[in-house]
Amino acid sequence: ATIARPVAASASASTPASLEPLDSFERRHIGVTTESDVKTMLDACKVDSLEQLIDKTIPAGIRLHRELAIGAAQSESTLHKTLKSIASENKIFRSYIGMGYYNTLTPPVIQRNVIENPGWYTQYTPYQPEVSQGRLESLLNYQTLVADLTKLPFPNASLLDEATAAGEAITMAFVNSGSKKPRFVADAAINPQTLALLRTRAEPHKIEVVTADVLKFDFSANDVCGVLVQYPTLSGDVHDYSALAERAHKAGALVVAATDLLALTVIKAPGEWGADIALGNAQRFGVPLGYGGPHAAFFAVSEKLVRKMPGRIVGVSRDASGNGAYRLALQTREQHIRREKASSNICTAQALLANMSAMYAVYHGPAGLRKIAERVHRLTGIFAEAVAHHGHTVVNKTFFDTLLIKTSVPAAQIISRAVEHGINLRTVDAAHVGVSLDETVTRDDLVHLLSVFALQGGEPAPIAAIDAAVAQRGPAYSAVARTSAYLTHPIFNSHHSETMMLRYIKSLENKDISLAHSMIPLGSCTMKLNATSEMYPVTWPEFNSLHPFAPVAQAQGYARMFEQLERDLVEITGYDAVSLQPNSGAQGEYAGLRAIMAYLKDIGQGHRHVCLIPVSAHGTNPATAQMVGMTIETVATDANGNVDIADLRAKAEQFKDHLAAIMITYPSTFGVFEEGIREVCDIIHKNGGQVYLDGANMNAQVGLCRPGDYGADVSHLNLHKTFCIPHGGGGPGMGPIGVKKHLAPFLPNHPVVSVGGKKSFGAVSAAPWGSSSILPISWSYIRMMGGSGLAQATRIAILNANYLQARLKSHYKILYTNKNGFCAHEFILDTRPFAKSAGIEAIDIAKRLQDYGFHAPTMSFPVAGTLMIEPTESESKVELDRFVDALISIRQEIADVESGKADRENNVLKNSPHSLRHVTASEWNHPYTRDQAAHPLPYLRKNKFWPSVSRIDDVFGDRRLQVTRAANDI
Amino acid sequence: ATIARPVAASASASTPASLEPLDSFERRHIGVTTESDVKTMLDACKVDSLEQLIDKTIPAGIRLHRELAIGAAQSESTLHKTLKSIASENKIFRSYIGMGYYNTLTPPVIQRNVIENPGWYTQYTPYQPEVSQGRLESLLNYQTLVADLTKLPFPNASLLDEATAAGEAITMAFVNSGSKKPRFVADAAINPQTLALLRTRAEPHKIEVVTADVLKFDFSANDVCGVLVQYPTLSGDVHDYSALAERAHKAGALVVAATDLLALTVIKAPGEWGADIALGNAQRFGVPLGYGGPHAAFFAVSEKLVRKMPGRIVGVSRDASGNGAYRLALQTREQHIRREKASSNICTAQALLANMSAMYAVYHGPAGLRKIAERVHRLTGIFAEAVAHHGHTVVNKTFFDTLLIKTSVPAAQIISRAVEHGINLRTVDAAHVGVSLDETVTRDDLVHLLSVFALQGGEPAPIAAIDAAVAQRGPAYSAVARTSAYLTHPIFNSHHSETMMLRYIKSLENKDISLAHSMIPLGSCTMKLNATSEMYPVTWPEFNSLHPFAPVAQAQGYARMFEQLERDLVEITGYDAVSLQPNSGAQGEYAGLRAIMAYLKDIGQGHRHVCLIPVSAHGTNPATAQMVGMTIETVATDANGNVDIADLRAKAEQFKDHLAAIMITYPSTFGVFEEGIREVCDIIHKNGGQVYLDGANMNAQVGLCRPGDYGADVSHLNLHKTFCIPHGGGGPGMGPIGVKKHLAPFLPNHPVVSVGGKKSFGAVSAAPWGSSSILPISWSYIRMMGGSGLAQATRIAILNANYLQARLKSHYKILYTNKNGFCAHEFILDTRPFAKSAGIEAIDIAKRLQDYGFHAPTMSFPVAGTLMIEPTESESKVELDRFVDALISIRQEIADVESGKADRENNVLKNSPHSLRHVTASEWNHPYTRDQAAHPLPYLRKNKFWPSVSRIDDVFGDRRLQVTRAANDI
Ligand SMILES: Cc1ncc(COP(=O)(O)O)c(C=O)c1O
Ligand SMILES: Cc1ncc(COP(=O)(O)O)c(C=O)c1O
Ligand SMILES: O=C([O-])O
Repeated sequence: ATIARPVAASASASTPASLEPLDSFERRHIGVTTESDVKTMLDACKVDSLEQLIDKTIPAGIRLHRELAIGAAQSESTLHKTLKSIASENKIFRSYIGMGYYNTLTPPVIQRNVIENPGWYTQYTPYQPEVSQGRLESLLNYQTLVADLTKLPFPNASLLDEATAAGEAITMAFVNSGSKKPRFVADAAINPQTLALLRTRAEPHKIEVVTADVLKFDFSANDVCGVLVQYPTLSGDVHDYSALAERAHKAGALVVAATDLLALTVIKAPGEWGADIALGNAQRFGVPLGYGGPHAAFFAVSEKLVRKMPGRIVGVSRDASGNGAYRLALQTREQHIRREKASSNICTAQALLANMSAMYAVYHGPAGLRKIAERVHRLTGIFAEAVAHHGHTVVNKTFFDTLLIKTSVPAAQIISRAVEHGINLRTVDAAHVGVSLDETVTRDDLVHLLSVFALQGGEPAPIAAIDAAVAQRGPAYSAVARTSAYLTHPIFNSHHSETMMLRYIKSLENKDISLAHSMIPLGSCTMKLNATSEMYPVTWPEFNSLHPFAPVAQAQGYARMFEQLERDLVEITGYDAVSLQPNSGAQGEYAGLRAIMAYLKDIGQGHRHVCLIPVSAHGTNPATAQMVGMTIETVATDANGNVDIADLRAKAEQFKDHLAAIMITYPSTFGVFEEGIREVCDIIHKNGGQVYLDGANMNAQVGLCRPGDYGADVSHLNLHKTFCIPHGGGGPGMGPIGVKKHLAPFLPNHPVVSVGGKKSFGAVSAAPWGSSSILPISWSYIRMMGGSGLAQATRIAILNANYLQARLKSHYKILYTNKNGFCAHEFILDTRPFAKSAGIEAIDIAKRLQDYGFHAPTMSFPVAGTLMIEPTESESKVELDRFVDALISIRQEIADVESGKADRENNVLKNSPHSLRHVTASEWNHPYTRDQAAHPLPYLRKNKFWPSVSRIDDVFGDRRLQVTRAANDI
Repeated sequence: ATIARPVAASASASTPASLEPLDSFERRHIGVTTESDVKTMLDACKVDSLEQLIDKTIPAGIRLHRELAIGAAQSESTLHKTLKSIASENKIFRSYIGMGYYNTLTPPVIQRNVIENPGWYTQYTPYQPEVSQGRLESLLNYQTLVADLTKLPFPNASLLDEATAAGEAITMAFVNSGSKKPRFVADAAINPQTLALLRTRAEPHKIEVVTADVLKFDFSANDVCGVLVQYPTLSGDVHDYSALAERAHKAGALVVAATDLLALTVIKAPGEWGADIALGNAQRFGVPLGYGGPHAAFFAVSEKLVRKMPGRIVGVSRDASGNGAYRLALQTREQHIRREKASSNICTAQALLANMSAMYAVYHGPAGLRKIAERVHRLTGIFAEAVAHHGHTVVNKTFFDTLLIKTSVPAAQIISRAVEHGINLRTVDAAHVGVSLDETVTRDDLVHLLSVFALQGGEPAPIAAIDAAVAQRGPAYSAVARTSAYLTHPIFNSHHSETMMLRYIKSLENKDISLAHSMIPLGSCTMKLNATSEMYPVTWPEFNSLHPFAPVAQAQGYARMFEQLERDLVEITGYDAVSLQPNSGAQGEYAGLRAIMAYLKDIGQGHRHVCLIPVSAHGTNPATAQMVGMTIETVATDANGNVDIADLRAKAEQFKDHLAAIMITYPSTFGVFEEGIREVCDIIHKNGGQVYLDGANMNAQVGLCRPGDYGADVSHLNLHKTFCIPHGGGGPGMGPIGVKKHLAPFLPNHPVVSVGGKKSFGAVSAAPWGSSSILPISWSYIRMMGGSGLAQATRIAILNANYLQARLKSHYKILYTNKNGFCAHEFILDTRPFAKSAGIEAIDIAKRLQDYGFHAPTMSFPVAGTLMIEPTESESKVELDRFVDALISIRQEIADVESGKADRENNVLKNSPHSLRHVTASEWNHPYTRDQAAHPLPYLRKNKFWPSVSRIDDVFGDRRLQVTRAANDI
C-alpha cells in the first residue's frame, strides 16, 4: 500500500521481495493511502505526477538529486526491538544528585491518561480558547499552584527549564533598572546550569554577573539590577533572606528566588520574605527525570512586573453569553504580537508537563504534598544523623532535602563506592559530596545509601532511634517554617481518589480539540501524526528515569541515540554539525545567533551587529535578534510575498560593514519556495554576514532540498513540527540547530557535562541535550520512514496543500503562490475582502470553523486578517475534502450576508462558535435555525466536536486580570 | 488520608511511623476520602460507626473476627517493583507452537487507545444501547469480520475461547438432532484442548465423542449429531471438506469447522464448503498471547441455527426518531431472560478483545490481511523446503502456516536444541515436531529456526533460491484457495492511516459511557475502580507474550503469581483450594457443579441430580445446572426477599435421595445478608447435597465473612467484579472457583499442561489458567489493599449502598432490607407503583437517568420492573450525592405526571433519553423546554454526557434481524 513515488527514490522502499514483517510505517504516517486518491489530487492540481508537482514547486537549482542516506525504512516492530536494545545500554542508578532534578512518583492515572494519551498530547497551544477550555483550566490550576506556593501573585503557564527561566529573570531585572544597573549578583550556592544561563543571557546586554555570598553582599554601589538566590541552596541550606531582600530593594535591585515547589510546602514562600520573582523546575511534581527533560519551569512575579513577564499566561474572562471562560491573557507582551519589543522570544513552552505537575498537585492536594515534603525531610534528617554516626561531617546546619557532606576519606572514594552500589551522588570537590533525597526513597534505599558511607563496617546506624531523636528536635528549617496556607481552592481538595482523578482528566480532555478529533490546519505549525510507536519510548524507564548529570558511562544508550540522530539531521539538512541542546525553536534561534556572533568575534568581526529580517518573519526572529543584542533592519517583500531582493541587496550593502546576519524562513512564511534563495545567501555572504535559516518549514524540504546545500549557515529544526514530537498543547518541543563547519566550534556547551564546541559561547538550556527523553520520537520517525519515506512525506505534504488550494481557489482568494501557481506545504487564504462585503473578519471564519468541527488555521500570521492553512502529509483525502467542504459552506454563509439573505450582525458567523450550551438552551433569538448553527453539513450529525463556551471576550479578561483560580470560579 | 476503621483491623495499616513511600493505594481505590464524609454518611444511616453499620448488616454468626492474613498493604511503586521482578522470571522464547495461539503484531494505535484506555476498558456490557453506540458499532464490525471470513451469516459478538466455543457447538448439534443422536465425531487432528472441552461438555448429555479420520468416517448409522474438523488441521493440512459436509448432512449431522481467521483470508470459507457452524480464536488478529488469554473466540452459524446460538449478538435497529441504531439482538435466547431454557449459560464474554480484533481488521483491511496471510504462507513454504534440505521430512503436503515434521533424529533432540536456542516447537511424539509460523516471523527468525534443524552443520539452505522456487509452484492450499471477496464494507477500507484509525477509535469511545465519565450503579456487577497500576502489567511483554503451552519452566513468574493469588483467594474465601481455569463466572459455575458431580459419583452418590435454586437466582445458575444435566427445583423466597427456609427444608427433604446441590447467592441477589445462611447450608448437607455459593457478591464479604466458614462447599469469584478486572464492555472476566478440601481432587485439569485435581472431571477452558494475563490485576489489587484495606473496602461498599438507600428511601420504595433496615452492598428500588400512578416504567427511569449523565442501574433483575443499585466503594460522596439528586429530581418529574402537571405521554421520561440530535434539532414538539430535557440539574451544564441516539426500538430490530454491517448502514 505504499504510494508510488518518483522512480529514483523508490530503491530502498520495501519491495515485494522483502521477507520482513509488514508493519511498515510510511503508509500509516502518510494520510493519503491509495494511488487513486493521489491521482485525483494530482488531477485537481493539474499536474501529471508527483514529481512534476515538485518540479513546479521547488526551484530546480536547489533540489537534492539523490535519496537521503538514512537507510531503508524499518518496520514498527523491528524498530521497537532495536530501540529496546539501545535503551538497555542506559543504566538506571539510584540518583541522589539533586541540583534541580529529583526522582518522583508519577501517579499512574496521570501517566496513562495525560502523557500517554493522544487526546492530551496532540493538542496545540490554546490560541482558540473555545475548544481548549480543558487544558486552559489545567494550566490555570498550574498557575494557581505556583502562585500559592511562591506567594507571588502573577505566574505564567510555564517556561522551558529553570536555567532559562533565570535567564529571563536577569533580563527583566536589567530592563527594570532602566537598563542602567549593569551588575547582577548570583549567590555562590546556585545550580551551575543556572549560573551558566545567567552568564549566557547577560553577555549581550553587557551585564556583569557577580557570584558572591549574597548574605554578605554590599549593595551600596547601587549598580546592581538584581540578585538571585537558590532557595534552598545548592548545598542544601535554607536561609532566611528577608534582610537580604530589604537591602537589595533599597538599592533598587530585584530579588529573584530560584526555588523548589516541594520545599515551599514547608518553608516560607519567597513572596513572604520579599522576592520579586520566583522560578524553578516543577519536575519533581510527577514528571520523570527524562535525562534532562522535558519538564515545566515555573515563573511568578509581583504585580508591578506582570506586564514584563515572559511566556504565556492563562487568564479568566467571559464568553459572548457572559459565562466565565478561560483564555490566554496579555498576549500583547509576546513575540508573536510585539516582535522585537517583546519581553522574551519564548513561544513553545512546556504545557503538557505543566499539566502533569498541576494534575499531581490536584491528586495529592495540600495535605498530601505537605506529607510528601515532611517525609522527604524526615528521611534527610535521619540520613544526616546517620552519616555523622559513620564519621562524616554534614556541613549545612539547615536543610530541607539536601546535604553537603565533608567526607572522612577523599570524596572520590565515596563517589566510586556509591557507583559500585548502583548509586549516584553529587560530585562537589575533593573533600565533599552532595546528597539530595526525594519522595521515591524507601527505608531500604536509606540503608543501602548509608552502607556506602559506612567505611569501616561497624555498627549500622540505629535508624529507628535516630528517627525518634530527630523528630524531637523539629525540622531543620524551623527558622523559616511555612505558616501560610496554600492550595485552598476546591480543585486541590476534591479529586483524591483515582476514580475522581480519572474523571477530571477525561472531562478536561473532552473539552479540547486535538488531532484525535480532526485535522488542525495550522500554518507554520505542522500538526502531523505523532505516532504511538514513536511515543512508546518516552515513558520507558530506560529513557525517563535517568538524571541529566548521571555519569555518561551510564547513559550509553542515550549517547548512541544522540549520535545517530545528529548524523541523520546532518544528512537531512546538509549541515556539518548539530547541537541537540535548544529546548524550542526560539532557543534554537538564540543559540544560532549566538554561535554566529561568537564566530564573527573569533574572526575579528565582532563589531558586526546588524540583522536583516524580512517583514514576514515569525515573531521569534526579531525577538531573538533583540535578545542577542543585534540591531534589526527590516527587509521588504514584493507583491508575491517574496523577499524583495533589490531591497535586500540595498540594505546588505548599506550595512555591509556591520552586517552580522539575516534571519530568513524557507520556504517563506507565506508558504512559497522563493526562487532567489541562493541569491539571498550569496548577497549576505558577500557583505560579510551569516545566514540564519529558520527551519520551521523543513516539512516542505526534507529529502528534496537542504539548507546546507543552498547557502545557509545555521538553522534550527522544530522537532515538534517536522519530526513528530507532539505539540502537547503548547509544548514540549525541541529546537536543535544544525550548522556549517565554521560554526561548529561555537555550538552550546554545558557547565556540568562536557558537550558542544571548543569555543562555545555558553549554554542555552539547563540540560546538556535539552529535553532528551522526547528525542526517541524523532529518532524513531526518521528510521521508520527511511530516506525514501521521508522524501515521500514531503511530497505528499506539498500535494495536500496544493490540492486544498486547487479546490479552494475558486471560492477564496489565495495570497501568494510561486510563478507556476503552486504553494509549498501551506498557503494563505485572503479573507480581508469580506470585511467590506459582509462585515466578516478572519476571526469570524476561524470561529465558525469550530462549528464545523475544525480547529482554525493560523490567524493573522504572517499577514494580518488572513488565514494560513497547512494540512501536512498525515491528513487523508477524506479529511481534506471535509475541510474544503466546510470552507466552501462558510463561503456560502458569507455570500448570504453579502446578498442580504442573512443579517449583517445576527448571523452564523458573527455568533460563532455555537456552544452546546447555546444550541441546547430553551431560548433561541436568531433568524437562523439551530440546525443551521450546529449542523450546517451532514457529517456533523454523525460526529461533531462541540465548543464548550461561546466566543471569548479578550478585552474584558485583560482589563481585569485574573490568573489564578478563585472563589468566583467558572 | 486513610479513613479510620474498626480498631482491630487497623494494625497493619501504614502508620505515621512507617518510612515507606506515600503512594499508598487504599485511599486511591476507595472513593470516600475524608473522615467527615464518612461521618455524614454514617449519620444519614443513623449509626454511630462503621463497625456498628457492619454489625447491623452482617449476621454476627458468620463474621470473621480477625484480619485477613494477606499481609500489609504495599504502595503502588513498591508493588510495581515486586511485580517487575516476578515478571522477569518469565522467559519469552520465540514460539512456533501454534495449536490455536500465534504471535501477532498489535498495532500500537490499538494498544494505546483501546486496551490501555479506560474509556474503552471500563465500559459495561452494552445493555443500555443509547450510551453504547461506539462499542456496539465496533462489535458489529467484529461480527461482520467473522461473517465475511467464514461465510456463515450469523455471527455472535464473541465467546470465551475456541475450546468452549466447540463445547457450545456440540450442545447445539445435539439439540439440533432433537437430542436423539448420541454420537459426535471429532477429527483426529483437532487441538487437544478443543477435544477436551468436547468431552467435558458431552458427558452430562451422554453424548459419545468419537475421534476419527473424518474424511473416512462412515455416517451411515445415522446416530451422529455433528462432526467437528479443525480447518486447517492441527498438523497443518488444508483439506477440502465439501464431500464430508455432504455426507454428514445426509446423515442429519451438523458440520462444525474450528478454523482460523487469518487462513480464511486465503482459503475457502467454511460456509462455502458446507459448514453449519464456524468457530475459532480471533487472537492472532492483534491480541497478545497472554499465556492463554484473554482473547475473543468467534462463532457463526447458518440461518437455521441462529435462534439457538449462544452468546450476545449485536444487531441493527432504529431509535425513537427512526434513525438507525445498534443494540443487542435476540436477547430472549440468553440466560438472563430464558434461564434454564437458554441456549447456553454464557454471560460475560470477550468484548474488549473482540473489539481489538475488529480494529485490527479495520486497520489492515482486506488487502492488508491477505498480504499478511500470504507472507506467513510464503515463510512456511520456504521453511518446508529448507527443513527438507536439512534431512527432515515434512509430513503434510498441504498447509497454510503449520507443518508436521518427521525429524531425522529423535524429536526430543530437536525440541531440546530449540530450547537451547530460545525457541519453542510443538511437541508431537517421539518422531515428530510441529511448527507454526505467524506474522511476527522475520527473515532472521527463519534462519535462526532453521539452524535448530541443521544438525550436521552443512550448507545453510539457500533461502532466496527456495523462495523463488516455492513461489513458482503456487500456494500449498491451492485446491481450496479462496476466490470470494470479504470485508468489502467501507469501514474496512477507510481507516488505514494511523491518524484515521486514531480518530475512529476515539470517535467510538466518545459515544459510550464508561467509568471514566460517571458512576455505573449496576447492581450485581460491582463496577469499581480498575486502577491504572493494576492495568500496567497486562501489556508488559513478560506477561502478554507467553504461549500458554510454553514449557512451565519458562513461566516461573506466572507460576509464582498464580500460587500467591490462589493462596490469597483461599484466605479470602475460607476454602482450601482454588482453580484459576474458568474464564467467567458462568464457567466457574459450570466447573463447580461438575466438581460436585464428580465428587458425588466418587463417593457412590452419582445418582444425585436435583439442584435447588431460589427464584431470585441469576440466570446463569439455572442455565448452568441445566448444562450439567441436573434437575432444577425452585425454592421460594419470603416477603423480605430471603430464601424461604421452610420451603427449602421441605424441598430438600422431598428430594433428599436425589439432592445434589443448591445454588445460592450470598448476600442474596436482593442485596441482603440473609440470617439463615448457615442453616441453609446445614439443611442441604443433612440431605446429602453440596452448597454452590455464587460468589458474584463477594464485594460485600471480603474481609468480613467467608463462604468457607459458614458452610458453603464451592464458589466462583467474579474477578471482574470484586477483584478489579475491568468489564471491558462485556468481557474479559475471570471466574476462578474455590472449593473445600473434599472437592479439591475434582478441580479442572488440562490436556496439555498438568494442572488440577487427580480425579478431575476434565477441562473447562482452552488454557490451563484461563485468561492468565489479566490475573496480575487481581493479584495487584489484593496486595496493594492488604488485609486491612480489603476489609475497609467492603465496609465502605456497604456504607455507600446504605447511604444511598437512606437518602432515597423517603422518595422511593426500597424493596427488601434486613431486619435492621440495612442492605448489603446493593439494594432494589421498587419502581413498579409508577406504572399505575403515572404510566412510568422502570425503563423510563433508566433511560431518563441517561439524560442526567448516568448509566442505568440493573433493570428487572432480580425483580421484574425494578432497579437494582450498587455503588461500590470506589465512588465518592460527591458522586453518590449527584446520583441521588438525579433520582430525586426524576421522582419529581414523575410526580409532575402524577399530578397532571406534565403530559402522560409527551413527557421528559417517556421521551428519554434526549439525544444531542434531538435537543439540537430545529423542531421541538414537546410541552417542556430543551433545558428541562437536557439540563434538569445545574451540574449538567458544566459536564454532560450525551446519548448519541434516542430510545431504541428492540422489537423492530429483532423482527428484521441484521447482524453485520451493510450498505444501508447507519
Ligand atoms: C517560522 C517559525 N519560526 C520559529 C518558531 C518558534 O519555534 P518554537 O515555538 O519552537 O519556539 C515558529 C513556531 O511556531 C515558527 O513558526
Ligand atoms: C449473581 C451472578 N452470578 C453469576 C454471574 C455470571 O458471571 P459471568 O458474567 O462472569 O459469567 C453474574 C454476572 O453478572 C452474577 O451477577
Ligand atoms: O451481567 C449480569 O447479568 O449481571
